[in-house]
Amino acid sequence: MTLENISCQKSYGGWHKRYRHSSKVLGCDMVFAVYLPPQAEQGEKLPVLYWLSGLTCTDENFMQKAGAQRLAAELGLIIVAPDTSPRGEQVPGDPDGAWDFGLGAGFYLNAIQQPWARNYQMHDYVVHELPALIEEHFPASDLRSISGHSMGGHGALVCALRNPGRYRSVSAFSPISNPMDCPWGEKAFSRYLGEDRAQWREWDASVLLAEADECPPLLVDQGDRDDFLEKQLKPEALEQAARKGGHGLTLRLQPGYDHSYYFIASFIDEHLRHHAVALGRV
Amino acid sequence: MTLENISCQKSYGGWHKRYRHSSKVLGCDMVFAVYLPPQAEQGEKLPVLYWLSGLTCTDENFMQKAGAQRLAAELGLIIVAPDTSPRGEQVPGDPDGAWDFGLGAGFYLNAIQQPWARNYQMHDYVVHELPALIEEHFPASDLRSISGHSMGGHGALVCALRNPGRYRSVSAFSPISNPMDCPWGEKAFSRYLGEDRAQWREWDASVLLAEADECPPLLVDQGDRDDFLEKQLKPEALEQAARKGGHGLTLRLQPGYDHSYYFIASFIDEHLRHHAVALGRV
Repeated sequence: MTLENISCQKSYGGWHKRYRHSSKVLGCDMVFAVYLPPQAEQGEKLPVLYWLSGLTCTDENFMQKAGAQRLAAELGLIIVAPDTSPRGEQVPGDPDGAWDFGLGAGFYLNAIQQPWARNYQMHDYVVHELPALIEEHFPASDLRSISGHSMGGHGALVCALRNPGRYRSVSAFSPISNPMDCPWGEKAFSRYLGEDRAQWREWDASVLLAEADECPPLLVDQGDRDDFLEKQLKPEALEQAARKGGHGLTLRLQPGYDHSYYFIASFIDEHLRHHAVALGRV
Repeated sequence: MTLENISCQKSYGGWHKRYRHSSKVLGCDMVFAVYLPPQAEQGEKLPVLYWLSGLTCTDENFMQKAGAQRLAAELGLIIVAPDTSPRGEQVPGDPDGAWDFGLGAGFYLNAIQQPWARNYQMHDYVVHELPALIEEHFPASDLRSISGHSMGGHGALVCALRNPGRYRSVSAFSPISNPMDCPWGEKAFSRYLGEDRAQWREWDASVLLAEADECPPLLVDQGDRDDFLEKQLKPEALEQAARKGGHGLTLRLQPGYDHSYYFIASFIDEHLRHHAVALGRV
């Protein structure tokens, strides 16, 4: 498969690069970003942290605003940031032009309802197609971890829980913890998956965690002044699920923090260290 | 003078806040951002680093992309980021709608040609009006340093050189080092200042540095893959001026780096430490 490099910028001794490629899984062209730390030029295969962004984002938000490159360069972690949905004129978006469904809002699941199912297969893209590309074209080992924010926090948790053994660690900022039971999730799931709620359970982090046999080391940070906390995010559901399933969960309610990248930047180093331990980099 | 708080976000234990106020000097409403480190809540007056952004920027670019808050929180530095020009419907912009003059491109000088002179007094705003506001409304001491990027690097150098004793230290990323002798500077100076080049000399960092009696500790970083390096930035002029004036200058050509915030983020910690030493915080 061909990768077209569309930008290349030096960052903390390593490189921030953006690529365009044709995705078979999604049926469209996609852009992703990769941060290659300085160690990537020394011949060693490095572990990869996948970052899943939230509603309305692209590959750019995290790379521009989280400040993750500083410590990733020190730890020798590759970071990959995919887009948040399939893109392109042929990809259907929200019929009303809303920002919480369709383009920029793929919810990292495999849609089963048309017209969405044709392109919206973000789970398979993020879990399989993209890592295969990364491991073929970059000095990346098959040691993977995954993290994300909001819709991407939901995505990271679901990717890790649906694919035991594929990720060494998982973390999330302000995840949509129980999408079956919040407006964002209900809107997205009812369209992508249809009205049968049994299907929804396959893509709900709290349901999956409660029933999982295993879960990699799991860290969640949530700001207590997040405007979406009570109505959309519901970290208490994740806490109950971890208890029910007998899984370890470090859930931290961070006083004063909101839903923005200022919050993410404030704690990204701790998330990188969490992953670096699991990936054998510290 | 009244400050209207328009946002407030916790960041590394401190606060990123944005304010709107009516500027007498500029004859319009202005927005600025301030980062208050955690020490600001402990009653101590803290020194302030002023950051001047480049062409097309507002108060937001640096705060979102440079990653300065992490170390500012550790060092106890307040950071203030003004906008890059006067704003508002009554403020004239570039007649052709260009991005390198007028709105977003005030060049941190005091214009003397109409219609610009009425609003474009960014030097007095940045050096006098804004610090007076900051020192009145925030736990800020009168210890000041100044830094900036590109047009803002020019601005930082000129503010420091025109106002001996006012700043403890100065630094710049990719500054427009010799605006009298580059297309961006020639366009801006000929309009803001008129055709008399004697006026231009008052706002050219290389001219001022060569003739200055004193200069605070001065650090400049420049990427060697910066697309604007040869035509617009010309750091060699600054180097010659420092030699001619007998001033210390740490000028570093950073291999592989471009003109972006990825470059700034990679070296912002070293700039903060440069200022923190001069400001008595390390």
